[in-house]
Amino acid sequence: MTPFNFARFGARPLFDKPLPVGQLYFPSWERYEAASRGIFERQYYNNNGPLHSEFESRLQEFLKVKHAICVANATLGLMMVADAMQLKGKVILPAFTFIASAQALSWAGLEPVFCDIDLNSHQMDISKIETLIDDDVCAIMGVNLWGGACDPKALGEIATARGLRLFFDSAHAFGVKIDDTSIGNFGEAEVFSFHATKVLSATEGGCICTNDDQLAARLRSIRPSYGGDAPVNVLRVANARMSEAQAAVGLMNLEDFPAHQKNNAALFSLYQSELEGIPGLHVCQPSGVSFSNFQYAPSVIDEAAFGLSRDNLVALLQSENVISRRYFYPGIHRGIPYAQEFPQYVDALPNTDAVCASCMQLPIGALVEKEGVRQICDFLRRAHEHAPAIQKMLGV
Amino acid sequence: MTPFNFARFGARPLFDKPLPVGQLYFPSWERYEAASRGIFERQYYNNNGPLHSEFESRLQEFLKVKHAICVANATLGLMMVADAMQLKGKVILPAFTFIASAQALSWAGLEPVFCDIDLNSHQMDISKIETLIDDDVCAIMGVNLWGGACDPKALGEIATARGLRLFFDSAHAFGVKIDDTSIGNFGEAEVFSFHATKVLSATEGGCICTNDDQLAARLRSIRPSYGGDAPVNVLRVANARMSEAQAAVGLMNLEDFPAHQKNNAALFSLYQSELEGIPGLHVCQPSGVSFSNFQYAPSVIDEAAFGLSRDNLVALLQSENVISRRYFYPGIHRGIPYAQEFPQYVDALPNTDAVCASCMQLPIGALVEKEGVRQICDFLRRAHEHAPAIQKMLGV
Repeated sequence: MTPFNFARFGARPLFDKPLPVGQLYFPSWERYEAASRGIFERQYYNNNGPLHSEFESRLQEFLKVKHAICVANATLGLMMVADAMQLKGKVILPAFTFIASAQALSWAGLEPVFCDIDLNSHQMDISKIETLIDDDVCAIMGVNLWGGACDPKALGEIATARGLRLFFDSAHAFGVKIDDTSIGNFGEAEVFSFHATKVLSATEGGCICTNDDQLAARLRSIRPSYGGDAPVNVLRVANARMSEAQAAVGLMNLEDFPAHQKNNAALFSLYQSELEGIPGLHVCQPSGVSFSNFQYAPSVIDEAAFGLSRDNLVALLQSENVISRRYFYPGIHRGIPYAQEFPQYVDALPNTDAVCASCMQLPIGALVEKEGVRQICDFLRRAHEHAPAIQKMLGV
Repeated sequence: MTPFNFARFGARPLFDKPLPVGQLYFPSWERYEAASRGIFERQYYNNNGPLHSEFESRLQEFLKVKHAICVANATLGLMMVADAMQLKGKVILPAFTFIASAQALSWAGLEPVFCDIDLNSHQMDISKIETLIDDDVCAIMGVNLWGGACDPKALGEIATARGLRLFFDSAHAFGVKIDDTSIGNFGEAEVFSFHATKVLSATEGGCICTNDDQLAARLRSIRPSYGGDAPVNVLRVANARMSEAQAAVGLMNLEDFPAHQKNNAALFSLYQSELEGIPGLHVCQPSGVSFSNFQYAPSVIDEAAFGLSRDNLVALLQSENVISRRYFYPGIHRGIPYAQEFPQYVDALPNTDAVCASCMQLPIGALVEKEGVRQICDFLRRAHEHAPAIQKMLGV
């Protein structure tokens, strides 16, 4: 018998095939094949095609938002929003987000101002925003994290009071609601991601939502959409078209969203109940929302209480074919080019640093089954129980 | 009998269905279905997947170039090249090109310097470049037009002599050769378009070619390619990934390229022979190359000699379901935002203005048959012969 029955020490891994973090919902071959045949027969592959138009209409209905503007990916969506809003100067955003949030600002010629986060929710700490505002700050980019939200209503009040513009990176928040209002309806615009790892996958893709007609017209002209609406004047365009192939998968997954959300919610709840009571291991609940997509299962490790570091635990899980990840790591403020260009933030975000050092993602989504979650939780329990012996064997 | 048997005056159109300008080559359903099934079964949709890697290798072999870096579309490719080359200041390019050439510079924070073109070849007039160079000019973006080339060797000599960087928008020039060297091997980098209207279609897409290892590494990190090569430090990334679905179609069309080139060459040659001798109508031959893809059939109308204006002729053709286009029109220097931001070019490019006012595209590619070309040519001959009467009926 190998020690603790751990793959790291010679046992057979918990899973035969790698179990990824990320949703990877995909419709049946029959539906996919039928949609592909339709695209093939119409010989219309991108640029405001029939499936693209239908996907936009369905998204508008689903989210109860006036304009859903599909794009090739969410990074391009954020670039387009910043450009269409004609922002100039600095934009406040958290450093605890995917690097594309900040990179999009950079392509739009804007400078990031990094705000620290709340230790419990991992969302941007709104109470810190006031101290970051100066004459060059023109906008706030809220980031709705982990299927939760960064209090868009409170952000709206701050923005109004201080004369700032407001938009959201809602890559994690498709289908999420605050009371009866869907994420997608806050600020001047919100951007969803439809990457394959997201709950609504178009294999890759994204969507900009806004209730502002003029902003929508500018966004459609930046995208661009020949043959669509009447073009309006914009300073520059980008090719950010979503293809018919992407829209086809998006449509099917939108139809299936209730089932996918339900599956995620059940898996998330199982993680919570199975991991309850393990010292130093906390599953972070989506915060500030009435309805979540449970797209992620972020878990925070307190090394002193758990007995092993987050990094050691991630490595042990990977040996078991559980592709757990440090996420996000490092914080954007410590990465290239931001640490060099804006050194003032490097040591200014203690909560961001703390969560970057302790957070890991557990698998959730279509490829994960309840029994798998139970096995992962059992593994984590054993890791905690044998932590001192494991540490010794790892030589740490 | 309706006058001249023209659809504009009540006759049945020449074609029952619209005949587009643009290649629209697409593999058979059987091949497309098989490729789609493979993608579906692997559940790997983008991000450096197996088809993507194969497509890049095949392109490298085909073009005899060290690095072919596939991207979601050519506009993103040009943005990435400008960024990876770390250009600052102004870049010389022609205004007679698709607007994305200039827009890509804008996203990369660069200012365009518009150079006039040659009246016969429509390529950038290299003799005018010297007068445009000042201390702020850092680079030349050559544009290889109409399946021809803008003399990349001469441009290379100018760039070297004047200490300028050099790259190419080769959206029109896939498969084109100068002597035995494929376009894709000139300057520091070249960008191809694989849009559906191009001879090598990936339904949408593009590819950056370079023989510079360091530039290639930076480009791959900007794209980005998780799981691919070792990342290098770049100032910003963009999501410009080509999907497996795109790569699959690209691979099939690359295999079929010889047949597609041959079809285009035959249609082009037919246009030339059938239209020969019609006064005021000149088909523009791809210039400066030893082998062309004949991706376009650009034709220039001399109104005085032909008897009808280019715009009237385009409208008459469209009535016949021949979706001819004014292309490019207007020149970028007269469009938004360039005319306002850089008024110095508005009246400075007489040859560009002349070609913008007289050039139209005739259909060529997969949806066009020889008999169709003959009918279009016959129509054009009749349009010339009856020009005075047609003018009267049009009220012009």
